[in-house]
Amino acid sequence: MRVAVVKNILDANSRIAQENRKLFDRHGLTVINLMSSPGAGKTTLLEQMGNHFGGRLKIGVVEGDIQTTLDAERVAAAGLEAVQIETDGACHLDANMVQNALGNLDLEALDLLVVENVGNLVCPADFNIGEDHKVMMLSVTEGDDKPYKYPLMFRESRVLLISKVDLLPHLRCNIEKIKAAGRAINPDLVIFEISSYSGQGLDDWHNWVQEQIKAT
Amino acid sequence: MRVAVVKNILDANSRIAQENRKLFDRHGLTVINLMSSPGAGKTTLLEQMGNHFGGRLKIGVVEGDIQTTLDAERVAAAGLEAVQIETDGACHLDANMVQNALGNLDLEALDLLVVENVGNLVCPADFNIGEDHKVMMLSVTEGDDKPYKYPLMFRESRVLLISKVDLLPHLRCNIEKIKAAGRAINPDLVIFEISSYSGQGLDDWHNWVQEQIKAT
Repeated sequence: MRVAVVKNILDANSRIAQENRKLFDRHGLTVINLMSSPGAGKTTLLEQMGNHFGGRLKIGVVEGDIQTTLDAERVAAAGLEAVQIETDGACHLDANMVQNALGNLDLEALDLLVVENVGNLVCPADFNIGEDHKVMMLSVTEGDDKPYKYPLMFRESRVLLISKVDLLPHLRCNIEKIKAAGRAINPDLVIFEISSYSGQGLDDWHNWVQEQIKAT
Repeated sequence: MRVAVVKNILDANSRIAQENRKLFDRHGLTVINLMSSPGAGKTTLLEQMGNHFGGRLKIGVVEGDIQTTLDAERVAAAGLEAVQIETDGACHLDANMVQNALGNLDLEALDLLVVENVGNLVCPADFNIGEDHKVMMLSVTEGDDKPYKYPLMFRESRVLLISKVDLLPHLRCNIEKIKAAGRAINPDLVIFEISSYSGQGLDDWHNWVQEQIKAT
């Protein structure tokens, strides 16, 4: 019975995700669903993107958190147009929550929308929100055994950002193991090794983002 | 309707948690439910506990992971009696999963049972499993804004282990902010600052664990 309930929820989510998808297409908007464990560095990366693309690309952000508007305040300070969803306990964003937030953004004026999901390496991978690309981030501080332990998100994602690589000298983490396991699960995974503190790898990531922007 | 479904699931979970509770009491067994984000260091701490208590305390571990038996193999190698639950997608352990795993352990022979939950700072906090103490771990690499963003786990936990403090010199993380916010949410929170690599704070944690062991 519980399985049937979950299936109904996912079916309803898919329908709304398709509506979101049509809305994004109508506005020629590229949409990224950014997911990771808590504290992997999603918001810090968005601040870097705000600095890098400032003026050239108009970026909107939908922030998902269980509570607080801290992240929306941070990315707004970096020049991005931000809306905060407080999920009030829910462990992921679904298509309906995102749809309800979209009315607060001028979609026609945006080139890129990033939905920063709730920090959780499990549940967000189950819920399409109408995005073009799922992008996941894994911090090297989380260890090199994560792809096999949390396979769904690696399977669903188009891009894996391996973050905080500046900390590698202080950790027992073999980044080659992460990359090999990620590609074993998802051979098409595009991988960037980045550090928002040192700046390593950010150019490659920003170039990839630029290439995804739809001609309008 | 969805709320009612969740309530039914939680009610059913509570009933089974009470059964587990009675079983643990009958065996005079102390039970810790250990929770954190992915990669905060739960398994590495269990390895340290195996080394520290080896011979003196008999410790059993129920490992919860979405897939793989990697963690059970690691803690078994550290001398702990381990059972692995593969949740096959589920983002948390519930009382029923734990109950099904208990048949694989000699509860009467154990002094302490640690249930290492699925790496997830959100969902595990909702599900009692019949434990004596919820213990949460937060790595300093996750940043100092986490208590207010994930309040339920901080509210439900008896102990907060702030892990990986050896990395603090390399991070922009104010550990005093974590402690203040944690105590604002839960004034009774017992806090230990630890590093399984440097050994800092482990004696205090081990002493706390020893004090919780029931006289049998």
